[in-house]
Amino acid sequence: MAEPTTVHVPLGERAYDILIGNGLIDNAGALLKAKFPGRRFGIVTDTEVAIAQLPRLTASLDAAEVSYATGVLPNGESTKSFARLGEVVEAILAARLERGDLIIALGGGVIGDLAGFAAAIARRGMDFVQVPTSLLAQVDSSVGGKTGINSPHGKNLIGAFHQPKLVLADLDALHTLPPRQLAAGYAEVVKYGLIDDEPFYFWLEDNRREIFAGNAALRAEMVARCCAAKTRFVLADEKETGVRALLNLGHTFGHALESATGYSDRLLHGEGVAIGMVLAHGFSAKLGLAPSQDTGRIAQHLSAAGLPTHLNDIPGELPDTDYLMNAIAQDKKVVRGALTFILTRGIGQAFIEKNVDPAAVHAYLEEVRAIR
Amino acid sequence: MAEPTTVHVPLGERAYDILIGNGLIDNAGALLKAKFPGRRFGIVTDTEVAIAQLPRLTASLDAAEVSYATGVLPNGESTKSFARLGEVVEAILAARLERGDLIIALGGGVIGDLAGFAAAIARRGMDFVQVPTSLLAQVDSSVGGKTGINSPHGKNLIGAFHQPKLVLADLDALHTLPPRQLAAGYAEVVKYGLIDDEPFYFWLEDNRREIFAGNAALRAEMVARCCAAKTRFVLADEKETGVRALLNLGHTFGHALESATGYSDRLLHGEGVAIGMVLAHGFSAKLGLAPSQDTGRIAQHLSAAGLPTHLNDIPGELPDTDYLMNAIAQDKKVVRGALTFILTRGIGQAFIEKNVDPAAVHAYLEEVRAIR
Repeated sequence: MAEPTTVHVPLGERAYDILIGNGLIDNAGALLKAKFPGRRFGIVTDTEVAIAQLPRLTASLDAAEVSYATGVLPNGESTKSFARLGEVVEAILAARLERGDLIIALGGGVIGDLAGFAAAIARRGMDFVQVPTSLLAQVDSSVGGKTGINSPHGKNLIGAFHQPKLVLADLDALHTLPPRQLAAGYAEVVKYGLIDDEPFYFWLEDNRREIFAGNAALRAEMVARCCAAKTRFVLADEKETGVRALLNLGHTFGHALESATGYSDRLLHGEGVAIGMVLAHGFSAKLGLAPSQDTGRIAQHLSAAGLPTHLNDIPGELPDTDYLMNAIAQDKKVVRGALTFILTRGIGQAFIEKNVDPAAVHAYLEEVRAIR
Repeated sequence: MAEPTTVHVPLGERAYDILIGNGLIDNAGALLKAKFPGRRFGIVTDTEVAIAQLPRLTASLDAAEVSYATGVLPNGESTKSFARLGEVVEAILAARLERGDLIIALGGGVIGDLAGFAAAIARRGMDFVQVPTSLLAQVDSSVGGKTGINSPHGKNLIGAFHQPKLVLADLDALHTLPPRQLAAGYAEVVKYGLIDDEPFYFWLEDNRREIFAGNAALRAEMVARCCAAKTRFVLADEKETGVRALLNLGHTFGHALESATGYSDRLLHGEGVAIGMVLAHGFSAKLGLAPSQDTGRIAQHLSAAGLPTHLNDIPGELPDTDYLMNAIAQDKKVVRGALTFILTRGIGQAFIEKNVDPAAVHAYLEEVRAIR
């Protein structure tokens, strides 16, 4: 195993390391045994990752003589449900995993969010390790301690802040990732550039083709830069009472679209974010805040990466704009009835706007839907 | 309203006050409006408390022009379930309560634990206020931030540490409490004496009759002394990694008995604790650690208060000792397979013993069951 890149998250007694590199899953047994001697582990994964990555992990744990139990859940966003949460917690208890033992979340964002939340509430809090196998999970959801599930009222409305004890981001896992999933993760990568890192955004435009072709060094640099950016926001605002909300760029629109498509395969989370980021730039431009040419430039970049960028790119019918507005209002970033949006003054210049007029959003969405 | 007694819980940014006195529910509207201006409230209560106390609370909130929504759950321990948790969280979201709004847990330990846990996970954490209406909740469960629900694998195995923002312990609520519930709460009161406060234990023996007869001054002193004791333990060890475990005196046996009776009306939590405390003293005496006469003295005191003190006092058949041992092993105070018990060297001298031999516990239970 080549030496991994380490991003440290210095959260005091909740501090942890993110290791980024190749072969990390194959070495997980030795890594975990050294860091958590004498502990048992409960692996939570899904049916797809169980085929692609679980054998590597269990072989590594077996070789290191580490004791573990395994639970496999259906693949997909609908797994982030209250019922599945109950199943995972009961399975943890049935396996007699104790307070000092650890949960391993092996999978994408769905598994990380669900297993992390289960760890947060089983026995009033167990430790857990993130082993993100999707690009989205590696650059976003596995870092920062947000865990949770979806509600019929909206995405991620039920959950806990619970930091992992370690993150192992194995770049090898990306080799078996379906192209559509890779593109969806790339939307979150682009987000970091759009928020406050214009040079990174341009670097991505320049290197997108090579990154998608599989260049290992560029992928490692990309993931590390994203984790470092995420860590900066988490340190500044662990519980998201302020600046961390910038990470939601594109997410309020995106969550509404995910709700409108029933959290189904019609629209992956990262795809919703891609459309949402284009909408956030377009809406900012309409308000006269941002240069209008940015919107097209970003749409072109995301589209070249295989991502949808317009409401009409979503297959099937969408509900009406009132439905979308209702979903936006239910999004948890609502404070005291006013709509909060992440708006922008241009690439790398996102900001939090707490007093967005719902009528303006409604009008903008109607306008966008009429185009094309 | 007479000036209430205040016990401050100085937990840094999670600090809060416990107010103890008469008429607090009738003044809740003004109190809450002053402390949480502009916030909305979600009241969670049960069918019995909804009759006895809810009208007082809503009248007070209405008079203060405070906005609220109300959810009423079935009365009883079986309400502390995963399914009910889901219902409460979804009701909070459906009522559009926001992150800055507060949940009010109006009821006994069941409602406090469930509503507090719902507040902990709805929108990844909302504030909440405890308005304990049972003696047990006033002296124990409403203070200290332990929230949670039961699992088929055992009591309180799923939950979170989530401190309330305020506790209103209204002594008037005890007037409508069924005598059996009052006695069950008294078991937890006696516990504080047994753990480390021999003078308080003797004070209770001397004043038990007056307290049960309704003496307001003695009741206020009793609740305040218990809250102060609980606060001491919570401050020393908020997350129960050490000394806070002393509060579990009688609870490992008690939880096993509650499991054995299906968390039903056959055995209230406080009743299980009463039997468990007698068993803990008896087992300690059998191990040669504590004077054997303490066991009888405590049993007499609890029995005079209307509490069961022996396994045979539980109506109906109990499962065999292997079942109880299994329930004891599943109790979350198990660390690395060894049995942890709160044992004692006598009244006011409880201690944590982490290496209790399961065979000795099994033998003691068999012995106890053969008596009478």
